[in-house]
Amino acid sequence: MDDLIKPNPMDENAAAGKPEGFLDRTLRNVRSAWRGIAGSGYDATTASSRPDLPESDLDTLKEQMRACLETRGGEVSARARAAALGHVYLALDATGRERFLNVLAHGFDVDPGPVDAAVEELRRAKGDDARRSAHTLLKRSLEAPRIKLLTQFNALPDGIKFLVDMRAELMGLETTDPALAALEQELKDLLTTWFDVDFLELRQITWDNASAALLEKLIAYEAVHAITGWDDLKNRLDSDRRCFAYFHPRMPAEPLIFVEVALVNGLAGNIQALLDENAPVIDPKTADTAIFYSISNAQKGLAGISFGNFLIKRVAETLSVEFKGLKTFSTLSPVVGFRKWLDRTLAEGEPKLLTPGEGKALNAAAGKAAGAKGVLKSLLANPSWPENQIFSDALYAPLLRLCARYLMEAKGLNKRALDPVAHFHLTNGARLERLNWRGDLSPRGVKKSGGIMINYLYDLSRVEDNHEAYTSTGKIMASSGVRNLLKK
Amino acid sequence: MDDLIKPNPMDENAAAGKPEGFLDRTLRNVRSAWRGIAGSGYDATTASSRPDLPESDLDTLKEQMRACLETRGGEVSARARAAALGHVYLALDATGRERFLNVLAHGFDVDPGPVDAAVEELRRAKGDDARRSAHTLLKRSLEAPRIKLLTQFNALPDGIKFLVDMRAELMGLETTDPALAALEQELKDLLTTWFDVDFLELRQITWDNASAALLEKLIAYEAVHAITGWDDLKNRLDSDRRCFAYFHPRMPAEPLIFVEVALVNGLAGNIQALLDENAPVIDPKTADTAIFYSISNAQKGLAGISFGNFLIKRVAETLSVEFKGLKTFSTLSPVVGFRKWLDRTLAEGEPKLLTPGEGKALNAAAGKAAGAKGVLKSLLANPSWPENQIFSDALYAPLLRLCARYLMEAKGLNKRALDPVAHFHLTNGARLERLNWRGDLSPRGVKKSGGIMINYLYDLSRVEDNHEAYTSTGKIMASSGVRNLLKK
Amino acid sequence: MDDLIKPNPMDENAAAGKPEGFLDRTLRNVRSAWRGIAGSGYDATTASSRPDLPESDLDTLKEQMRACLETRGGEVSARARAAALGHVYLALDATGRERFLNVLAHGFDVDPGPVDAAVEELRRAKGDDARRSAHTLLKRSLEAPRIKLLTQFNALPDGIKFLVDMRAELMGLETTDPALAALEQELKDLLTTWFDVDFLELRQITWDNASAALLEKLIAYEAVHAITGWDDLKNRLDSDRRCFAYFHPRMPAEPLIFVEVALVNGLAGNIQALLDENAPVIDPKTADTAIFYSISNAQKGLAGISFGNFLIKRVAETLSVEFKGLKTFSTLSPVVGFRKWLDRTLAEGEPKLLTPGEGKALNAAAGKAAGAKGVLKSLLANPSWPENQIFSDALYAPLLRLCARYLMEAKGLNKRALDPVAHFHLTNGARLERLNWRGDLSPRGVKKSGGIMINYLYDLSRVEDNHEAYTSTGKIMASSGVRNLLKK
Amino acid sequence: MDDLIKPNPMDENAAAGKPEGFLDRTLRNVRSAWRGIAGSGYDATTASSRPDLPESDLDTLKEQMRACLETRGGEVSARARAAALGHVYLALDATGRERFLNVLAHGFDVDPGPVDAAVEELRRAKGDDARRSAHTLLKRSLEAPRIKLLTQFNALPDGIKFLVDMRAELMGLETTDPALAALEQELKDLLTTWFDVDFLELRQITWDNASAALLEKLIAYEAVHAITGWDDLKNRLDSDRRCFAYFHPRMPAEPLIFVEVALVNGLAGNIQALLDENAPVIDPKTADTAIFYSISNAQKGLAGISFGNFLIKRVAETLSVEFKGLKTFSTLSPVVGFRKWLDRTLAEGEPKLLTPGEGKALNAAAGKAAGAKGVLKSLLANPSWPENQIFSDALYAPLLRLCARYLMEAKGLNKRALDPVAHFHLTNGARLERLNWRGDLSPRGVKKSGGIMINYLYDLSRVEDNHEAYTSTGKIMASSGVRNLLKK
Repeated sequence: MDDLIKPNPMDENAAAGKPEGFLDRTLRNVRSAWRGIAGSGYDATTASSRPDLPESDLDTLKEQMRACLETRGGEVSARARAAALGHVYLALDATGRERFLNVLAHGFDVDPGPVDAAVEELRRAKGDDARRSAHTLLKRSLEAPRIKLLTQFNALPDGIKFLVDMRAELMGLETTDPALAALEQELKDLLTTWFDVDFLELRQITWDNASAALLEKLIAYEAVHAITGWDDLKNRLDSDRRCFAYFHPRMPAEPLIFVEVALVNGLAGNIQALLDENAPVIDPKTADTAIFYSISNAQKGLAGISFGNFLIKRVAETLSVEFKGLKTFSTLSPVVGFRKWLDRTLAEGEPKLLTPGEGKALNAAAGKAAGAKGVLKSLLANPSWPENQIFSDALYAPLLRLCARYLMEAKGLNKRALDPVAHFHLTNGARLERLNWRGDLSPRGVKKSGGIMINYLYDLSRVEDNHEAYTSTGKIMASSGVRNLLKK
Repeated sequence: MDDLIKPNPMDENAAAGKPEGFLDRTLRNVRSAWRGIAGSGYDATTASSRPDLPESDLDTLKEQMRACLETRGGEVSARARAAALGHVYLALDATGRERFLNVLAHGFDVDPGPVDAAVEELRRAKGDDARRSAHTLLKRSLEAPRIKLLTQFNALPDGIKFLVDMRAELMGLETTDPALAALEQELKDLLTTWFDVDFLELRQITWDNASAALLEKLIAYEAVHAITGWDDLKNRLDSDRRCFAYFHPRMPAEPLIFVEVALVNGLAGNIQALLDENAPVIDPKTADTAIFYSISNAQKGLAGISFGNFLIKRVAETLSVEFKGLKTFSTLSPVVGFRKWLDRTLAEGEPKLLTPGEGKALNAAAGKAAGAKGVLKSLLANPSWPENQIFSDALYAPLLRLCARYLMEAKGLNKRALDPVAHFHLTNGARLERLNWRGDLSPRGVKKSGGIMINYLYDLSRVEDNHEAYTSTGKIMASSGVRNLLKK
Repeated sequence: MDDLIKPNPMDENAAAGKPEGFLDRTLRNVRSAWRGIAGSGYDATTASSRPDLPESDLDTLKEQMRACLETRGGEVSARARAAALGHVYLALDATGRERFLNVLAHGFDVDPGPVDAAVEELRRAKGDDARRSAHTLLKRSLEAPRIKLLTQFNALPDGIKFLVDMRAELMGLETTDPALAALEQELKDLLTTWFDVDFLELRQITWDNASAALLEKLIAYEAVHAITGWDDLKNRLDSDRRCFAYFHPRMPAEPLIFVEVALVNGLAGNIQALLDENAPVIDPKTADTAIFYSISNAQKGLAGISFGNFLIKRVAETLSVEFKGLKTFSTLSPVVGFRKWLDRTLAEGEPKLLTPGEGKALNAAAGKAAGAKGVLKSLLANPSWPENQIFSDALYAPLLRLCARYLMEAKGLNKRALDPVAHFHLTNGARLERLNWRGDLSPRGVKKSGGIMINYLYDLSRVEDNHEAYTSTGKIMASSGVRNLLKK
Repeated sequence: MDDLIKPNPMDENAAAGKPEGFLDRTLRNVRSAWRGIAGSGYDATTASSRPDLPESDLDTLKEQMRACLETRGGEVSARARAAALGHVYLALDATGRERFLNVLAHGFDVDPGPVDAAVEELRRAKGDDARRSAHTLLKRSLEAPRIKLLTQFNALPDGIKFLVDMRAELMGLETTDPALAALEQELKDLLTTWFDVDFLELRQITWDNASAALLEKLIAYEAVHAITGWDDLKNRLDSDRRCFAYFHPRMPAEPLIFVEVALVNGLAGNIQALLDENAPVIDPKTADTAIFYSISNAQKGLAGISFGNFLIKRVAETLSVEFKGLKTFSTLSPVVGFRKWLDRTLAEGEPKLLTPGEGKALNAAAGKAAGAKGVLKSLLANPSWPENQIFSDALYAPLLRLCARYLMEAKGLNKRALDPVAHFHLTNGARLERLNWRGDLSPRGVKKSGGIMINYLYDLSRVEDNHEAYTSTGKIMASSGVRNLLKK
């Protein structure tokens, strides 16, 4: 899902020198708000004046962490001390934070001694009960002490957001240190438990109920089709549009993932038409189709903890109850890996990629001799081919066929569909419903998807079977229309 | 803490034949409400007609559990299936539930194969990184599959309450089966993570803000000094009384633990006076002392997951902000193990337990010859001794001294104070402040505590040091008044 | 409606010497809570020490009132001063309050001078525009200055409740002073505007959502079938029962009027059966009938400002949406004026009140000679007649017929039905549906209604026509069953 | 207050042909939202197809209104019918609405007959009681029936907003019809009662708590210093800025009046500096001064119903509690009538308006001969004089002095200060504290106020006395600094 569901780049710095646009400003607003909240009440003189956490501070830090783990002064005091450490972390610069994380990862790792002792006990265990008891002992010995400290950071105001962001930063470190990897994994395990989908709250976000602070985050986090301003945003919340998000009860102002839906008649095939602020509005009560046209993860630190499947199905249920006329639930999605795969395929020089008729037509369009090689590659090399009607017409048949082939036949590991968005929806039990020629003529749409968009259809009565077929055998369900495209 | 903080006996059956009193009725109300909520939408024909889950059903059950674990049909479907299994569980009788738990415990245990393979890999690992990687593998291999199913039960309405109650039932089983013990431990680990104290919400419970359904639970769960009716309850919430509880955001109608506080002038020493509904009310703004006179755990299934320390200190902080005149924070607590210890000590026949003067006075009071043996034991054997002024006067000095000795000197494992309530408050950093003669003349108070109550003082500026002294060396902090009692 | 919708007697004193029962205690609780709220922050030394507001204080009071009316020191100060006066009023005893009200009524009355001047201007006005302008002037001149002060009392915490209660006290004064009557009328006009039904909020009151403080008020205010305790109350809120009330946004803790509804199958005819806590509960989803069995005004100070009509119809709509199976909406009501009317009719000695057969049967039952006079009167004189099967059987036919006659034919002013409850429901457009013999055998039911209860049917498709027929011509709609009872 | 507190022009049409800017778009958004809400459920075929309400529809309309007033079919039906009429009104165009209002005003006016009868009764009344009773009768006879219908419109969703807007439209009609004026006055009386200040809720509006829909209204309604976009708005809500508004409980999404405050050190004198988004932010905890720099009425239909006085004082109290360091509360206000008054004064040719030195300096600056006439007038005629340092320096002394004179000495009716903003704050008890040269160099600031801004100081310990002095004798309180400016 690297494109459809792209995490939000919270930590990158504004590009130097570039004039700051609407989105940059919005991102900056959101970031500074969080720093402000997190930092409230913090007065760590050392940290703020020595934000790179020099060597000389590391022992102090380690000692403070140890005091937390030993709950010196009692649990209440230990939590307060952990919160202070969290404030220190927030006041550090990138170097300082990496050092902080290293202390945590290396200073409070699993102790090999007890592990080996427990292994020895397991070796000597006779009978099921003794084994079980040895298992328990062994499991405890494998729990790194730092996990306790992670939990204690929860004492920060917005502590859970702190941990989510700490994981995002761990993931962003360019390192292969297995201790840091283990720390990151422990954080993921903790967050997986805390962010169990049934703890989350599904909320509709509207112009009338959402605060500006929350809406600003939608603008910042939208990863698929950028929101260009408050008017564009309003257009995505009002009238025949809906937006839903999951929230955690202890992060009520932070969307975890959100989906944008258009209520329309018939499958929508063109994203620019869908997003046009001046397009006529329909009465949503008359709509027969809900188009999920954008779904964005808002928290990089929750990568790999999946809510998208639940979100789509619960939103579909919720909309069904409100709008009795809805019969069809479908996405309008990019084919994000298509051009990359096609370029590689072209480079590999696979013969007979085109039918003779297609080759001839393409060469004619390109003004080349019939039979000239490499016409597809050279036509596509010019990103403005969609603006040329002759090129576009000649590309229509072969690109659609190759796109269908990419989606249906290109496989990665374990029989997974190579396209990450396709893999996400197929795992959810959706099927490939329709390819839309010239569905996304934005520069990015042309570059990644050849301008093609696809509808993944969620037929709630079929998703279980589709899911099973796909996950057990790799079978990809598709409409006859999509399957027909495969034929030359 | 077996007395001060006693869990609520949710699952015992109403005593057959006994006329149902106010408390029984309240308990029944609370229980039936929960069954009602949990059962909504349930239609498990089999389970309700065969509530003992006969042998022939066990394979079906196991197969359903496996389908959940394999997330057949996708995650959404798997969760729905787990919820249905949860409804089955709720419809079972005690035999059926035990069978259900056994399937879960034995059918989805840790698989020894991968454990042994991981152990072997660890044995062969060279270097820190390889060891770390083997640790990770080993840790994963030790996670029983049933843990995933426990999480999936969260899909039930009130799923988290379901798991809390399931653990309570596991704890109530009279079994030594280590697989069930492991399941119980896994549930405890899961709940420990979910019920992290910083996820909880501290709320004041008042007559004006709390629903009848919530207040009914306070009546049912109060474990220290039973609430005799709605007027008694109102008296504990209004005017110069306060009640605070912790709540989990996903169990908003269920208190986890609650504390009752009286705002008074000077240390309160008598519980009957404190609870008297007709006692004059003081203006809480004039109070200098907050007496924590009852603290009750409301969820048996959260046993061992401790909130009491946090609750007392956060409530003390909250009250300090509202009532600037408060200078002293103290409990009024029973000495629940005193008489049991004293009886054992008497039975052991320790010489010189009494001073000669005390022995003489007691014998005189009892109408026995001076120097007769066993007078203390025989006087105490009559539970109505407090009503006899002569007995009571003669017992005053020796009982108080022995009680102080019990609290200060009687030790259990690891230098812990033998008295569980004392251990709880000492661990929190409180100190023994004052023993109150005739502080609780209820039958239970006389029977367990010899009628004595104690004030544990929370001096917030000292609790860290007191905690450290007690937990590291076993040193028990006490006022000079209490220490003086030890002297003969 | 003196019985069905009886205001709550807030201000009567507990009967001296009588042992205080559950209801007394509840009323006392409610009253003291309100005094507490209203009095917060009050420190009117004079008033509390001289609660009868002696003569010597009256000039000061009048001067203070004048300062409010002149908004001395600006509007903010004037409001603060009015609030202080309100606190003084609350601290006064009955004598003091009456004096306070007299100052308000007589000291700040309409000034005749401007009225006469405006009348003179009207007399001289030529043409419509001049008349209109004179009307406006005249209207202003007729507004008493005290009205402004009434509005300023709104600055009290719970100011609107203060004014509602002040009107209740005005209504309770035994006086014929027209100035006080005018003050009361002005207060009514103000409250009528503020309590416009479309400002009110209709809320369902449940065991789960309502605070104990609110529920305590239901117990105190229930005027038709007294609530005997918390278990009885719970029984009226749960399972197959519903309770709805109107609230004002500025009196959120005070119900204005509430209705209790039973969801049953078929028309319910017996109130004791309906209120039985041990009666089996039905699944409300299977109910076909909603019985409105009690409707109580909670605020004496809102007498004459009617919400009952709206309440019944909005609750009927609300229930229809939730329970699709409901087909019938009906009350179960007393016939509160029946026995009083019957006794008068008997006293008047109307001939042929009974058929010969009835007379004979009654005399036989009473052991009197056939043809003896006065048997009906003498049988009814014994309030325990319902316990005697023979008496009861003999009374069946004549009492029902006479009751039907009373309801259908006994008229008061303007062709209104004489029975106040009947008049209320007939004005709402309901019809007389069924008389229920032995429908209410409580002492009060026997004494007032002859043990008979009636169902008023609300057929929402007919209420408009029924209302028009009744209000324009006095025609009373009734089922054929009720009409047949009239025949001898 | 025509400038400081300017109502929002809700009903004007977007200027034809002009490119739509940010504010136009925002206004349009707000308007269409309200139409949408109000129109929900409306299906008045006639009205929408004949939006000018032709003659032939007027009788139908009148008949419908009469049915409402006679509560035909009962009160519930009458309210429903009134709501339908309200929907008709909303669907009409300007012509149709004026006709609708005329039917209401003329068709349901006061009936002269009963008025004359009541006057006659008053004439004949003997004694106080008879007079009082005649007064009551007369008052009732003067109440136009249409008032009842106004109240019934409350049954619309957002009915109270409907009435507020209806009054705004009545005020906008260019008419001298006294019947329409009477209707408008009746509406004002009704709204005055409903919008009693103690029914209102004071809320702080923040970026975090306010919905986009609400914030959009602030942008549209800000009448003093236009908000240029979402970034500007955020800058006015965050960090060292605060915004408070009054709301009515039945119009929770509509601010009635709002004030913007800057927390600064020392009196702020320049509005452009205050609004600069890039100005450094101070920690509000260190501020000693709160500057009320903008206060806007948001509802034209509430004109004449004053909340501003309460708003300023309650906000001052609220801020005092949160920020203990605040010592000074002051406005930064325009002198909106200064230039108009000055131009008139110059036109009147008052001699010795300037000192000789000033005249010379001005002529020198203007390059005119010493002693030339009319130099002040000609310099000011060029709106860009502030950009010319020489002009500006020469104008400094005379303009400030004349401005002080305008504020202190120019009087309107009843000794009121001529400047409406000054009159507003003086009535509130504020005093003239400081004139700020070049305080507002926006085109509007230069045009209306000569670029000068003034601080009105709210010393809460003095406002009562100041108010009394001003309202009783017209005495204007000013600092010595302002008073000194008067001296030549």
